[in-house]
Parts: sequence; C-alpha cells; structure tokens
Amino acid sequence: MTTAAETLRFTSDPQIDGRVSERSFEVMRDGSAIPGILWTPATVDRAVPLVLMGHGGSGHKRNERMLDLGIRFARDRGFAAAAIDGPGHGGRGGLTETTDPAYGAIWQRPNNVADMVADWQATLDALGELDAIDSARIGYWGMSMGTMFGMPFVAAEPRIRAAALGKAGLTGSSVDRSDIAPHFRASAPNVTCPTYFHVQWDDERFDRYSSLFLFDMLGTAEKELHTFPGLHAVTSPEALEGSIAFLARHLTA
Amino acid sequence: MTTAAETLRFTSDPQIDGRVSERSFEVMRDGSAIPGILWTPATVDRAVPLVLMGHGGSGHKRNERMLDLGIRFARDRGFAAAAIDGPGHGGRGGLTETTDPAYGAIWQRPNNVADMVADWQATLDALGELDAIDSARIGYWGMSMGTMFGMPFVAAEPRIRAAALGKAGLTGSSVDRSDIAPHFRASAPNVTCPTYFHVQWDDERFDRYSSLFLFDMLGTAEKELHTFPGLHAVTSPEALEGSIAFLARHLTA
Repeated sequence: MTTAAETLRFTSDPQIDGRVSERSFEVMRDGSAIPGILWTPATVDRAVPLVLMGHGGSGHKRNERMLDLGIRFARDRGFAAAAIDGPGHGGRGGLTETTDPAYGAIWQRPNNVADMVADWQATLDALGELDAIDSARIGYWGMSMGTMFGMPFVAAEPRIRAAALGKAGLTGSSVDRSDIAPHFRASAPNVTCPTYFHVQWDDERFDRYSSLFLFDMLGTAEKELHTFPGLHAVTSPEALEGSIAFLARHLTA
Repeated sequence: MTTAAETLRFTSDPQIDGRVSERSFEVMRDGSAIPGILWTPATVDRAVPLVLMGHGGSGHKRNERMLDLGIRFARDRGFAAAAIDGPGHGGRGGLTETTDPAYGAIWQRPNNVADMVADWQATLDALGELDAIDSARIGYWGMSMGTMFGMPFVAAEPRIRAAALGKAGLTGSSVDRSDIAPHFRASAPNVTCPTYFHVQWDDERFDRYSSLFLFDMLGTAEKELHTFPGLHAVTSPEALEGSIAFLARHLTA
C-alpha cells in the first residue's frame, strides 16, 4: 500500500517569476499519471489555502485561464493553486476543440465523472500532505467543463470549503446535455459549501433558465448567483475577480 | 417661467466632514418642496458624476443606508450623490413602518409613480445646473421602494447612464404587489442603460422567480444579476460594494 505522499512526484524544478513559484507534478492513481501544475507564493512561511482549478473543455492544466488564475491566487492572495489535465485533455490526450469526436467520446465513457472525481481526490490527498498546504482550507474553481466534473467533485468531497462554479446548466438547446444532467441532478443538492455561481446571460451552450435551476438546486444556503452579459466564452474582469474574491473571503476567514 | 436653477434652494450650509461635504436642499415643483440631501467631495475642481439615490420603504433621504452611500460615493469615488424623500416619507410625512396604513395609501394614490418620477426629474434638472455636477454622467441607485419608484424613473429618463436596482419583483406571496407590477411591466423593457440588479435569494417580500423575470424583462443587454443569501432586508458588504463599483465603472468610463 502506498501512502498519499508517495503518489506525488514533481516533474520540474520550481520556476520562480517574481513572487510566484510554478512547478509541474504528477499524481499516480491506479497506475496512471495525472499531470498537474502547482502555483504557490515564491516564499511560504506557513501553510496556505489551496484552490483546485478545473479547466474548461478543450483547455488544459496550463492554458491562459489556469495560468492567470494560478498567478493571481499565488501573487495577490498568498494562496496555492493547482490544475490537472482533464481526461483527453493536455498531457492526457491533447484535444483542443470540443467539436473533436474525442471530446464527445469522453462523455460517452462509463464512469468518466467518477474517474475524474477520483483523480481530483487523489490530487488533493497528495497535495494536502505538503507542508506548504493548509489542508483545512481547500477551495475549488471551475467553469463549464470545470463545473461538469467539478460539481460532482465538490459534492463528494467534504474537504472543499468553498467553490466557484458556473457556465453550466441542465439543458442546452444547441448542445446535448443529457450526459451531464444526471450528474448535476445527483450532485447539486450535495454541494453544501459556500458557492459562487457564474452565469453568462446569453450563453449559447447552456439554456439560461436551466442554469438558474441548477443554481437553485445547490444544497447550500450560502450561495451567490452572478450573471453577466455575453456568450458562453465571455468572462469579464469583474466576473473573474468576483469569483476570486469569494474564494479568498471564505478560505481566509 | 422659472428656470431649472431657480427651483433649487439650499437649506443648510455645507457640513464638511473629512473629505465629504453634505448639504440640505429643496427643489420646488408645482408649489411643493421636495426635500433632499446632496453629498459631494469637500473639494471639487471639476464637474463630477452624480448618483441619485432612492431610499427604501419606511426610510428617508438621510437614513443609515443613504448616508453611508452618500459618503462612500463622495469620499471613495469622488462623485456627488443625492437623495430625496419619497412621498409620505421623511420630511414629506415621516412614516417609519411599511405596516403604517399611510404606506399602503401611497400605493393606492393615482399617479403616485408618475409624481415621484416627476420629482426625480425636477431634482435632476435642478442639480444638473450646478457647476460641480457633470450632467452627462448621471447614475441611479435604489433598492426595494427605491426600485419601485426608480425603475420607472430610469426607464423614463435618458440622462441616466447606469443604474443599480433590485430587491423587487412582480409578485409577493406575503405582500400584494398588484399595484407596482403594472409599472414594472411597463418600464422594465424601457430600461436601456447598463443595470446592476440585486436579488436576495430568500426574499420574503418578493417572490424569487418574479424577481428573476423582472431582471429578464429589462430592455438593456448590459445587465448583471447578483443574488445573495438572506431575507429582503439583508445587504452584505460585497453586495453593496458591487453595486457601487458597477456605477463607478460605468460613470467613470
């Protein structure tokens, strides 16, 4: 039997840029490597909160959004942040378009959500062992596919103390959502941590009111809905900063 | 014929507290005096944006919320802000409870909304003449009764460039909203300025989904919905700061 600490392997030296340290890692689970990136303040003199970050469909662990968020959590908030590649993405397949048949295949695969939840739990087990991480203050940030995998993870994982989710709903008039809807219906009532939920009012991939219903279904009373104009891929600076500030507030208290 | 400037009379000297100046005024309209308060930065060396602020039911032009907002707009943002008493409130009747029959009577009186819109327009005409005010950058902030009167005002008044509204909807299971609902239905599609809309998710005075529908009805595409946990009267620091920042962003650009 391996311990949690033994499943983590750093695959690069720390890269220091200003006040931020970035390091690649792998977590082994069931013989497979889950590739990830860990951002921390360059200097850590006591254990800090950790935000786990799930990238969107066609993205990867170090795409523009993940890198920007990782830096902002580390530099502006003094937090650690980590992202891992989703199935088929980044170092686990490299797909770059959600129109790629390989993307659809992810959602046809049995246990795809349960497997990704297990990947996240193994990642949290491993990173939580680090001296730099305060395992009592763990948050989750993920939109769109980061919510499709992340809401079941947050619902299953009592160590998550606050979450930023959104850009997701139960139906999509232009995209079949029947694969994810049952997972949302099962997990939303079990999300019991404070949650920031982001909706793009003109989202063309998730029906507006199905996103509001999904928010309504969240089990926590400590939830905030924030909607902004624009299509699915739009993220205003205020929306992004709002989600960061929400996690910072709940993980600092 | 009087000019707009002639309708404004200051009824106190400026009271300076730190970086904020506060001054009482009256605007005459049809022989009646509308009492108000104007907050500005203590030193104004060029014309600044003005936020008109409508207080809630049972409040008045200088209640805790108006005073706090007036100071914050003037001190933190370098803006002017003004509040006037609503009908039956403050210096125009002094009611202090929405359970007072006089409050219900306000909503039975014909033309009550049109009269308050005219009061606001006379106030804007008068204050807009001041050298300290940039009449091209006018905003509106008002929740609950401040939206019941304010949404029709914002809809009718093209000089309003951005609005913060909310804590209102078309129906209330515990409170009859049939008097205001027609005004909302008529005015919401004509709100064409950027709008921040605040909903208390557990509001006991306006039905949740009727508030979401009201937001949906707003004519502007530049709208944001922000919901927070708690009953009608709850306002978190983040909710308040969010509405201030929204107006500041749109009136500064």
